[in-house]
Amino acid sequence: MSRAYNFSAGPAALPESVLRQVQEEMLEWQGERASVMEVSHRGKAFVECAAAAERDLRELMAIPDDYHVLFLQGGATTLAALLPMNLAGADATADYVLTGHWGEKALDNARPLLRTNIAASGKAGGYVDIPPVGEWQLTPGAAFVHYTPNETIHGIEFRDIPDVGDVPLVADVSSNFMSAPIDVSRFGVLYGGAQKNLGPSGLAIAIVRKDLLGRHGRALPPIFELQNQAKNDSMFNTPPTFAWYVLGLVLKWAREQGGTAAIGERNRRKAELLYSAIDGSGGYYRNAVAPAARSWMNVPFFLPDAALDKPFLQEAEAAGLLGLKGHRAVGGMRASIYNAMPEAGVQALVDFMADFARRHG
Amino acid sequence: MSRAYNFSAGPAALPESVLRQVQEEMLEWQGERASVMEVSHRGKAFVECAAAAERDLRELMAIPDDYHVLFLQGGATTLAALLPMNLAGADATADYVLTGHWGEKALDNARPLLRTNIAASGKAGGYVDIPPVGEWQLTPGAAFVHYTPNETIHGIEFRDIPDVGDVPLVADVSSNFMSAPIDVSRFGVLYGGAQKNLGPSGLAIAIVRKDLLGRHGRALPPIFELQNQAKNDSMFNTPPTFAWYVLGLVLKWAREQGGTAAIGERNRRKAELLYSAIDGSGGYYRNAVAPAARSWMNVPFFLPDAALDKPFLQEAEAAGLLGLKGHRAVGGMRASIYNAMPEAGVQALVDFMADFARRHG
Repeated sequence: MSRAYNFSAGPAALPESVLRQVQEEMLEWQGERASVMEVSHRGKAFVECAAAAERDLRELMAIPDDYHVLFLQGGATTLAALLPMNLAGADATADYVLTGHWGEKALDNARPLLRTNIAASGKAGGYVDIPPVGEWQLTPGAAFVHYTPNETIHGIEFRDIPDVGDVPLVADVSSNFMSAPIDVSRFGVLYGGAQKNLGPSGLAIAIVRKDLLGRHGRALPPIFELQNQAKNDSMFNTPPTFAWYVLGLVLKWAREQGGTAAIGERNRRKAELLYSAIDGSGGYYRNAVAPAARSWMNVPFFLPDAALDKPFLQEAEAAGLLGLKGHRAVGGMRASIYNAMPEAGVQALVDFMADFARRHG
Repeated sequence: MSRAYNFSAGPAALPESVLRQVQEEMLEWQGERASVMEVSHRGKAFVECAAAAERDLRELMAIPDDYHVLFLQGGATTLAALLPMNLAGADATADYVLTGHWGEKALDNARPLLRTNIAASGKAGGYVDIPPVGEWQLTPGAAFVHYTPNETIHGIEFRDIPDVGDVPLVADVSSNFMSAPIDVSRFGVLYGGAQKNLGPSGLAIAIVRKDLLGRHGRALPPIFELQNQAKNDSMFNTPPTFAWYVLGLVLKWAREQGGTAAIGERNRRKAELLYSAIDGSGGYYRNAVAPAARSWMNVPFFLPDAALDKPFLQEAEAAGLLGLKGHRAVGGMRASIYNAMPEAGVQALVDFMADFARRHG
C-alpha cells in the first residue's frame, strides 16, 4: 500500500507531515503522558494548544482585533442555522444570494428563523455563473447578506468580494477557507466547516465581527448563544479537542508553506494547470462554469460520454487518483484541489487525463 | 516518558489498544490509501465503519429495534437544547429532576423552549443524595421527564431507573454511558457526549424511541430536526468521521472485554475498591455522597485539610496518577474511573492514597 492523491470534496486530504506528527504523538502528547484526545480541555497544555491555533489563524488570515474567532462543534450547516438566530430577531430580513447547492441549504436553515429574501439566484441558469452584483435585489436595512464565495458542488467561486454597502456580509467559506488572502474587514461573518482546507470534520470556525453578537433579542438556549462561546474562548462546553489540535498542526504547516499569499499563488497555479488541461483537450473534457466564476478549489468536468465515467474512475483509482466522482447533483467528475493537494498531484491528474483521452478518444 | 493512569473527568482515558490501532492506521486506513480523516463519509469504507459502530452499540446495549441510534455533532449540552425542540411544542411541559450541575444545565437549555417544572432537586442539600422518587412532583401529561443518571461533578448515580409511568424518561448518560447493563426500553431517550466512556469529544449519541420524533409541530431549521438525521443514518450533514471511527474501535474493545455485563462488574469492583479505601481511611479521606447514591464513575473525595490538596496532586502526578483535581464547584479531589480505567489503575490510586495518608497523617 501507499498513499494516493486524494481529490475528495470533504472530508479531504490533509498534509502528510501533519498526519505523521499526529501518528507520532498519538499515545503521548507533549509530555502529558496521555493522548491529546484524553486530556482535559481546561488543562494548561490543551488551553495553550487551542490558543496557539487561534493566534496562527489570526496571523495567517490577518484577522482584525474587533473579530471573534470561534471554534465550534458541527459544520457549516450548523452555523447556517445558528448565525441567523444570533445575528437578528425573527422580524428582521436577511438577503440570500444563491450560486449553488450550499447557498440553497443555508437559506433552508434560515427560513424558519427570520424573513428571507432571495436577492439573486443562478439557479435558472443551472448555476454556471454568478449573477452580476449590480443586479442583486438587496433589501434596504437588511440584517445581513449571505452568500457562498465558493460552491463546492457547482465549482463556482467569487474572485472579488461583492460590495453590499453597510449591511454585514455573511459568507460560508467552507470550501475556500484560507485558500488565498482575503480582506476579513469586508465581512460581518466568515464561517465554515474545517474538513476541506483546515482539518478533520466535526469542527466549524466562525470569524465574527464583535459588535454583531448579542443583539438579536431572542430567548435562546445558552448553548446556541454564540456570545457565550465568545466569552468562554469557545469552551462554553467541551470542544472537539482532537479536531482543534489537528487544525493547529495544519495552520503550522500553512505557515511553513509561506502563509496565505504563497498558498494562494500555488492554488492559482494548480487551478490554471487543471483548467488548461480541460480547455486544451479539444473538447474531450468540458467544464460548464463561466471562466470568470471558475473555482480554484473544486473543478467539475465532464467526459464526452457518461458511459466513460466508470472506466475513468476505475483507471484513475488504479493510477492512485482518488475521490474524482462528481456530486450526484451535477454528475461527471470533480477534482477538489484544496490547500493540502500538492502541485504534483494536479500534474499527475492532468497527465492521467491526457493519457485517458488518447486511449478512449 | 510513559503513559500514566488518567483520572480526567472528560475528555478521558481511552483504551491503549485503541490508541495503538489509531496510530498504526493513521496514514493509511483499511486499504483506502488515505487516513480515515481524509475519506468521504459517503464512501463505502466509511459507511461500513459507521454502520458497524451502530451494530456494535445496539448489541452491547441491547437496544430495541424501535429506537433510533443517532450519531451527532456536539456534546450533551447541544442535545440538552435539541431534544426539547424535537420532543415537544413550546406549550408542552417537561419535568426536570436535578441531582447536580448537569441537570441544572439541561434545564437552563430547555427553559427558552418549553414550559419546565422542577419535579425534584437535591440542591438545597448540596447535591449529596437523590430525592426519593416517591416525592417527585411530576406533572400529569408532561412531554417528558429529564434526569441525569450520573452526575459527573457531584459523583451521584442512580442505581435504579425511576418509575415515572407512561411519560417518556429522557436521560443524560454522558458519564455512565454503557458502564453497566441498562434496560433501554424503560427510556424515551438516552443521550450523552462520547468523551467519557465511548470516544473522543465532538460526538454525541442519542438513542431515541422512534415514535417520539417528528411530533413537535415547530418550524425548525432542517439541521436541528433530529428526524432528518434519523432518516439519513446520521449523515444529514458531514458527521465527525474521526470521532465516529474511534468510537467504533472502543466498541470493538468493549466486546473483547466481555460486553457490558463484564464491564459493569469490573466497574462495580473498581468503585468498591476506591470507596472502601476512602471509608477505611479512619476519616482521613471523606466522600460526602449518601452511600446508596455513590457513583461508580466519578468519585469525589476530600482530604482532612484543603492545604493538603496541592501536595496530594503534585505527588500523585509524580506517581503517574493524573487528572485528580476536583471540579471547582465541589473542590477537593475527584477520580473518574470510566470503562477504560483498568483495575490496576484504581489499585495504584488506592495504594498511593494509603501511602500519602501515612506520610501526611
